[in-house]
Amino acid sequence: MAALTCNATDLGGLLGSATNLTAATYICDRFDTISARLSDTTYAVDTTYLLFSAYLVFAMQLGFAMLCAGSVRAKNTMNIMLTNVLDAATGGLFYYLFGFAFAFGSPSNTFIGKHYFGLQGITSPSADYSNFLYQWAFAIAAAGITSGSIAERTQFVAYLIYSSFLTGFVYPVVSHWFWSSDGWASPTHSRLLFGSGVIDFAGSGVVHMVGGIAGLWGALIEGPRIGRFDHAGRPIALRGHSATLVVLGTFLLWFGWYGFNPGSFLNILKSYGDGGSYYGQWSAVGRTAVTTTLAGCTAALTTLFGKRLMSGHWNVTDVCNGLLGGFAAITSGCSVVDPWAAIVCGFVAAAVLIGCNKLAERLRYDDPLEAAQLHGGCGAWGILFTALFAREKYVNQVYPGRPGRPYGLFMGGGGRLLAAHVIQILVITGWVSALMGSLFYILHRMGLLRISEEDELAGMDLTRHGGFAYAYDDEDNSPPSNNNGGGFMMKAMRAGATATATANQV
Amino acid sequence: MAALTCNATDLGGLLGSATNLTAATYICDRFDTISARLSDTTYAVDTTYLLFSAYLVFAMQLGFAMLCAGSVRAKNTMNIMLTNVLDAATGGLFYYLFGFAFAFGSPSNTFIGKHYFGLQGITSPSADYSNFLYQWAFAIAAAGITSGSIAERTQFVAYLIYSSFLTGFVYPVVSHWFWSSDGWASPTHSRLLFGSGVIDFAGSGVVHMVGGIAGLWGALIEGPRIGRFDHAGRPIALRGHSATLVVLGTFLLWFGWYGFNPGSFLNILKSYGDGGSYYGQWSAVGRTAVTTTLAGCTAALTTLFGKRLMSGHWNVTDVCNGLLGGFAAITSGCSVVDPWAAIVCGFVAAAVLIGCNKLAERLRYDDPLEAAQLHGGCGAWGILFTALFAREKYVNQVYPGRPGRPYGLFMGGGGRLLAAHVIQILVITGWVSALMGSLFYILHRMGLLRISEEDELAGMDLTRHGGFAYAYDDEDNSPPSNNNGGGFMMKAMRAGATATATANQV
Amino acid sequence: MAALTCNATDLGGLLGSATNLTAATYICDRFDTISARLSDTTYAVDTTYLLFSAYLVFAMQLGFAMLCAGSVRAKNTMNIMLTNVLDAATGGLFYYLFGFAFAFGSPSNTFIGKHYFGLQGITSPSADYSNFLYQWAFAIAAAGITSGSIAERTQFVAYLIYSSFLTGFVYPVVSHWFWSSDGWASPTHSRLLFGSGVIDFAGSGVVHMVGGIAGLWGALIEGPRIGRFDHAGRPIALRGHSATLVVLGTFLLWFGWYGFNPGSFLNILKSYGDGGSYYGQWSAVGRTAVTTTLAGCTAALTTLFGKRLMSGHWNVTDVCNGLLGGFAAITSGCSVVDPWAAIVCGFVAAAVLIGCNKLAERLRYDDPLEAAQLHGGCGAWGILFTALFAREKYVNQVYPGRPGRPYGLFMGGGGRLLAAHVIQILVITGWVSALMGSLFYILHRMGLLRISEEDELAGMDLTRHGGFAYAYDDEDNSPPSNNNGGGFMMKAMRAGATATATANQV
Repeated sequence: MAALTCNATDLGGLLGSATNLTAATYICDRFDTISARLSDTTYAVDTTYLLFSAYLVFAMQLGFAMLCAGSVRAKNTMNIMLTNVLDAATGGLFYYLFGFAFAFGSPSNTFIGKHYFGLQGITSPSADYSNFLYQWAFAIAAAGITSGSIAERTQFVAYLIYSSFLTGFVYPVVSHWFWSSDGWASPTHSRLLFGSGVIDFAGSGVVHMVGGIAGLWGALIEGPRIGRFDHAGRPIALRGHSATLVVLGTFLLWFGWYGFNPGSFLNILKSYGDGGSYYGQWSAVGRTAVTTTLAGCTAALTTLFGKRLMSGHWNVTDVCNGLLGGFAAITSGCSVVDPWAAIVCGFVAAAVLIGCNKLAERLRYDDPLEAAQLHGGCGAWGILFTALFAREKYVNQVYPGRPGRPYGLFMGGGGRLLAAHVIQILVITGWVSALMGSLFYILHRMGLLRISEEDELAGMDLTRHGGFAYAYDDEDNSPPSNNNGGGFMMKAMRAGATATATANQV
Repeated sequence: MAALTCNATDLGGLLGSATNLTAATYICDRFDTISARLSDTTYAVDTTYLLFSAYLVFAMQLGFAMLCAGSVRAKNTMNIMLTNVLDAATGGLFYYLFGFAFAFGSPSNTFIGKHYFGLQGITSPSADYSNFLYQWAFAIAAAGITSGSIAERTQFVAYLIYSSFLTGFVYPVVSHWFWSSDGWASPTHSRLLFGSGVIDFAGSGVVHMVGGIAGLWGALIEGPRIGRFDHAGRPIALRGHSATLVVLGTFLLWFGWYGFNPGSFLNILKSYGDGGSYYGQWSAVGRTAVTTTLAGCTAALTTLFGKRLMSGHWNVTDVCNGLLGGFAAITSGCSVVDPWAAIVCGFVAAAVLIGCNKLAERLRYDDPLEAAQLHGGCGAWGILFTALFAREKYVNQVYPGRPGRPYGLFMGGGGRLLAAHVIQILVITGWVSALMGSLFYILHRMGLLRISEEDELAGMDLTRHGGFAYAYDDEDNSPPSNNNGGGFMMKAMRAGATATATANQV
Repeated sequence: MAALTCNATDLGGLLGSATNLTAATYICDRFDTISARLSDTTYAVDTTYLLFSAYLVFAMQLGFAMLCAGSVRAKNTMNIMLTNVLDAATGGLFYYLFGFAFAFGSPSNTFIGKHYFGLQGITSPSADYSNFLYQWAFAIAAAGITSGSIAERTQFVAYLIYSSFLTGFVYPVVSHWFWSSDGWASPTHSRLLFGSGVIDFAGSGVVHMVGGIAGLWGALIEGPRIGRFDHAGRPIALRGHSATLVVLGTFLLWFGWYGFNPGSFLNILKSYGDGGSYYGQWSAVGRTAVTTTLAGCTAALTTLFGKRLMSGHWNVTDVCNGLLGGFAAITSGCSVVDPWAAIVCGFVAAAVLIGCNKLAERLRYDDPLEAAQLHGGCGAWGILFTALFAREKYVNQVYPGRPGRPYGLFMGGGGRLLAAHVIQILVITGWVSALMGSLFYILHRMGLLRISEEDELAGMDLTRHGGFAYAYDDEDNSPPSNNNGGGFMMKAMRAGATATATANQV
């Protein structure tokens, strides 16, 4: 295909007479106009695509809020929801001030970015406001994952500290390594790690493992919730207070994942062929949405039947977690694997999640949202999966311009991609453990991490957030003396239960 | 308007001298480049439009889950939500393996498609991954409708069987008939049924009637819920447990319907004029969103005042159902009628729903979601409505290339479209009754359809799904002996109620 | 940049010989084709952008419904949700019949539009169905705001009357003044007010102040809810029944605000440069999403720490209101200020909201949603903020073609924009007070505004809407005598509470 640039002198010469320069200019001017308008169109289409994807990823924060709320006990609902709202809010400020600069500031070194602080220096096609918005929505997702692990027992001030640190520094640096073209392990860096670089397309490692491992250390250091394990160490289910909220949150996360995975292409108007043929990035985007869907569906069904065999009932919240585990796993390779491979990915992800949960119970590790298991465990599996199943054709289309680059081991692409991905798992684990583990330990030693036993038994909403989240009885309103707001229902119910005992004794 | 293809030999000849072939090539190369880039742009714009529409349709599954959850009693919440999650998950696998192939596999015969199993053989502009995703979201909607009719009394295993069968075979075949250009009743088939074909644009018949009639047979065969009719046969309202969830679900369905109806154009970048004029598919897409909105709004208001006259109060859940009935009705003709006609459509839809509900009570038919009445009844009305009000201009724009094709009877377009639409109603009713009626009957005879009376009274969540969906009281956590998870609240409350009686007797 | 129009006679002359007219026609035909296809592409891209933005704005109605439901007591949940559903439904009909015509009918006078009644006379690029849908979603937002102020004590019939009047007349006229190019205060009118016109980009004044001030008069005239102030006039919190719904609604509003603010550009494919350069409306759209985000985040954090200092606890519902106050404030200037200025906007908005709430308590003004304070107060601040911080470059890009127009006072743009914005605040306050204040007063005098004391104490759901919104206990189903639907739980609980007292006395 010829270029679209039009040179009047060249064309005038071709037209065969000196006077034809004017004609050539007339024609070339029009080609220049068309070229500019096609560029404008591309910018508008790609920005529309990226912004609406960003809005979907943002909707995941609502999904996290509802999932977390439903998964904790009623007495800690306000607390966990406040953390989810503040992930977005503090994340907004810190990612604006530092995070985006650390992650994508360019030019930079291989370790950390150093431009775009406070969005100074943008806009350009590769770093516009829409890119910031999209990446911000990713950053707050990482913080949202961590808040699930340490739910129901963490001081609010500790939460504010780690959340700012995670979205402002720890996560941005990791995303720089793997997603900025300056990053040392990026698949678009001029010198590719093992000749390959890491293909963590939408962030099974960069987002999910980072959030999951941060949560792992927080939950490990502060220990399980009171009552989670009995005196003999046997696990006792502390069920969340609303399965409806769990399902609502899960579906919202599913909805938002269509922004997370297909959106990670960042643009959609890009031909893969020599021009004029059908195939292009729009098709790869659709394929990514399909692999995402199939991995989640398979993981959900695997969990359904697996849990049925193990527990004897059909459990909706387990199915929801299985589904999310499938999504967390496919997030890494979603753009470079075939749909059938996504089914393999989801099947194994469900097994990984069940295994991690078994292990967690054995180790008396308590994670109210199974966040470390789900995002850490399934995320790590997803990274390996990509290194095994990435298809040559797709890898070269999504990461073009490097002929002969490695792809999935099982697809005949050799072991170099796998080597790079093992490095990714180790490095993320090490970096997050060193920084977030240390931070949680320091908070623990300073007495800022865990709430008191009394507060934990009473619930954080009553002791720290001004009251219970729910008040289904309205009796408190008629006599003005009952002016303490919600909570009446709870008291009435306990009183009722006590009354029963008394009455029975009578 | 001239074509954009540029032939260098032709142009060289026109430029007047043999040496000008080079100039002509120079110019034509640029036109070719532009042509290719315009094609690429069209693919990207249309895929963006289709994918985000698909995401909206997927959001309807969340809407169904919340609507269903709120419409059943608390004791069956987990059960109904699990069915909604699994509609999407099993639908994903079965529609990937078989469904899409049966529906849109091409080339095929008029009855069923026979390519694209496991998505082999795509991608092309008319069958890309985005098409699969969009159609999958439709397939699971049909299954979601059915699950509402048989809620609160159906064995989970029966649900898994019918859901797979419906999304994997029954629904895809119907969509092939009416939506694939190979289908015998399709409006784009080479031989049009009655010279017209069926205009079921977004599926009042293909989706809503299919789901509704399947549900009708399921609910008929297993009979009403215990307590739904008293000994004298008088109906007793078994109210859902949360009007908030009903409203949440209804609004989410409304939101998603903007993907369902306008999205059914499948693309948006298509001129209707001779080029250069304003009018095109983008405008028809907008009009479709408007007709959808107005039909729903009118049906909601009609229901509000109708129910006020009949029952004496302003009922929000009835208004929600009326709204959805308006949407189900306009779904067939949304793209080919004027906004004022959509108001007529919604007005009658509300009356149809009220009538169907009256009839259902008289026949002692119990459908917890009114799904057969709403999706079946209003869907059938919508099919007739289209045959009466479809406007010539719009019909020819949406289904071009067949001058003189029939349109709405009341708009002067004759009766052939109506004849085709009556056939559609009869054929869908027959096909779904034969297959799904038989399936439900077989399940019934094998004792796999309805749960036991004890389970129904206790609720399926407790007996089959591991516990109640809600636990607003957290007392169960302090003494480790109460390790049976949720449900404590319910017991405490019942105990409290009993205690009252006892205390009063003392 | 040259134009794209191609004249064959001109080009033929340039090509140098009479016979070359055919060649020139050949070439020009292709340029004409390209020009038409580029126009088509622009229409399709812009309509896609506008429609999906409209869908997001519509999602705000769901957000309002959930926010309002969670903020009222359980006994009035059905009532408030019904008003939110009906805002959308009655708004749909009235905005279709009158509203859109009053607002954007063109050509018109400066006070009110007079075309497009029932959408007659569209479609054109500036008034297509997608424009109607987008503006309808705005109109119902205004009505939704007002319903919050008068929640829990207003007759349903009064609601129906004011809602129709507001969406059908009061709001459309205001939007005509400031948003139609015919409006007397519009920034695109041929004669600019103070040489500037009002820059109320997405409607801090047009939507939020209108809704807030209407609510203010309604709430003032009917007075506070029973029990809101004790005999000494001290405020008593009447807490909403579900913080979860408040958070759900807030996040949905946040999600929808990305349609409200960036969507108000109405199109995205528009170059700001001389062509070919990167910068264009797509970038401004992204910047608008970022300023919106940052204002909300800053307001949320300011409220968090401010309320912590004042009340001693971390309150999630206050943070939600603070967040929304930040959004309401930035809505006016979102497209013409820098991100750092948005942080200033959000910080002050939080202070304004806290101040307004203090003032409201002192004046014994009761607004269950803080709607007048939030949308009225923060909206007014947002109008002033724009007049202070609007940047010259952005103002000239968003409102082009008027060199030397005024911009923000603090940015060196003089005081004329501020003067225009002070006029806006006064005029909106006057217009809405005159019309809506009179309407509420007439309803009040006719005894149609406030419900009876008995109904208020019992709750409107039981007395007017057929029952309680929730029924978490399912006991009512086993004995058919308990056929009164929901509400059993509430009674059981009250009975239990009474039993306790009795038992204790025994």
